[in-house]
Amino acid sequence: MFFDNQRLNGDIEKVEENLRNSVTSKNKLLVKAIADTVGAGGKRLRPAMVIVSSYFGKIRQENLIQLASAIELLHTATLIHDDVLDNSPYRRNNETVYKKYGTDMAIYCGDFLYTKALLMLADIVPANKLTIAARAVKTICEGEVDQYRDKYVMNLSVPSYLKRISRKTAVLFSASCALGALCAKCNPRITNSLSKLGFYYGVMFQLIDDFRDYKSGDSEWGKPVYNDLSKGILTLPAIYACRDSKEIHKRVQNYWNKKVNTNEELNSIISLICSSGGMEYTENYIKRYRQKALREIDKLPQSEARDILGDLINKLHI
Amino acid sequence: MFFDNQRLNGDIEKVEENLRNSVTSKNKLLVKAIADTVGAGGKRLRPAMVIVSSYFGKIRQENLIQLASAIELLHTATLIHDDVLDNSPYRRNNETVYKKYGTDMAIYCGDFLYTKALLMLADIVPANKLTIAARAVKTICEGEVDQYRDKYVMNLSVPSYLKRISRKTAVLFSASCALGALCAKCNPRITNSLSKLGFYYGVMFQLIDDFRDYKSGDSEWGKPVYNDLSKGILTLPAIYACRDSKEIHKRVQNYWNKKVNTNEELNSIISLICSSGGMEYTENYIKRYRQKALREIDKLPQSEARDILGDLINKLHI
Repeated sequence: MFFDNQRLNGDIEKVEENLRNSVTSKNKLLVKAIADTVGAGGKRLRPAMVIVSSYFGKIRQENLIQLASAIELLHTATLIHDDVLDNSPYRRNNETVYKKYGTDMAIYCGDFLYTKALLMLADIVPANKLTIAARAVKTICEGEVDQYRDKYVMNLSVPSYLKRISRKTAVLFSASCALGALCAKCNPRITNSLSKLGFYYGVMFQLIDDFRDYKSGDSEWGKPVYNDLSKGILTLPAIYACRDSKEIHKRVQNYWNKKVNTNEELNSIISLICSSGGMEYTENYIKRYRQKALREIDKLPQSEARDILGDLINKLHI
Repeated sequence: MFFDNQRLNGDIEKVEENLRNSVTSKNKLLVKAIADTVGAGGKRLRPAMVIVSSYFGKIRQENLIQLASAIELLHTATLIHDDVLDNSPYRRNNETVYKKYGTDMAIYCGDFLYTKALLMLADIVPANKLTIAARAVKTICEGEVDQYRDKYVMNLSVPSYLKRISRKTAVLFSASCALGALCAKCNPRITNSLSKLGFYYGVMFQLIDDFRDYKSGDSEWGKPVYNDLSKGILTLPAIYACRDSKEIHKRVQNYWNKKVNTNEELNSIISLICSSGGMEYTENYIKRYRQKALREIDKLPQSEARDILGDLINKLHI
């Protein structure tokens, strides 16, 4: 079990059980395809954020489990669709729906899960708060379209990059915290801090993911490495390196223009980026967002929940 | 303008205007891709069903327009995703998002629209009624997965076919009527009849669409014809023909097995199906569902709205 706190672990276990039971349909193929993905695990960080945020208020246990499960299903839906776009055969060391059943099934499984998740949310979240979840999905789509638009674009600015990962990743973490707090009837000051904390945590999470994408041979997260650059996506280490070194800039450009696109060239560019100072530059940003998140913690009332959050923030590292 | 009734036409015009204004995002590419599809028109039959159903009760005009627009956006989202699966370059004589911008954009535009639509619905539909819309989307996905599962399957039964088109098409028409009636606070008896009427109308609509798919050279609906069989999909005319004639059965099977898969062979099989009695068989089903829909009309209070519905049902023909 990933988390140190017993109460949190207990609740996450209930979420796991609920996830196993919540995807039902008379269509057996759909259920199987989805169960493979939902069951494949992952750290359940978003449900954890929902749950810990709710600890600052009061909520019926079954509603909390339902809320946290819905957020994880929403997240799973985005993953299933992402895998189509990235042509990803594996995620978390399992075959993706895309690889196993094809594009058709992956699109519909994602749509089905989006809807299932919004249905579950509509059951427990007050209608005027439901927009937080829907707006999060809307923003994730915008972030993914940003990424599509930015493909093979050199000279991407750091603010553009930060905006993209905010939309793509941080907004759902933020919504997780906000919904957990709101449904537990926390006061607006606490809800606001938790929402910000979730946002900074999400940026940090994506920065670390992008950092690890450059760390060779590190397959702990179950993803193929060195993937972003080969897909035409510039993340922070490469943005720094291309800005800092004319040579790296030129070689990325040539690689993308397919003038030189062997695996050797890719590996060589990645080595250059890794030793360019891009990794330290990214680490610096990770530190900065960790501090932002920790500063929000200071605004929360002292409690076990606050300690868990501090622990979650500090445990997230490269 | 498609509809004969002035009040309905006025409301549909407001829906058109609302559709043009409702898709906003800071992401210009997303807005453009979606605007192309939403603006490409279509008969707006689903919004019309929402609107006419609401005439049996009372609803604020702006809420009605919002509700009808949301249903059309939901429908548009399913079309955008369908076009990816069907590799459709054109719809309603316009290039599809899939063709113009690729799979990536099409998936995200669909997701964005789904969410946007559910957001709009959450604004006006009471939370406990929102499930009607979400359940409709869930069912559409199941229907599309049915279709995927049934691909290249010979000996499909008529009940299986009817179940598939019910899920794929009829459920959204039914939900349109139900939501229109519910939001206009119609009594349960009227809501129930309208919901059933929408369902039968939807089945009829899909039967006609499938019938037309066999009608050569008929591109009035802006879709390429003879498409279903070549995609491995058996619809009612072919189901009848394959059951009735061993020769047609064998030739479809061989065509799918790629033993003979020239365009000439496809056209020849289609001619055989057209003269097999399959078209008359399908027409018979269309008649049956028209009668079912008209029987529900008899249960509704005499009114202008009832006349419009009768007109809509009778205007839908092969």
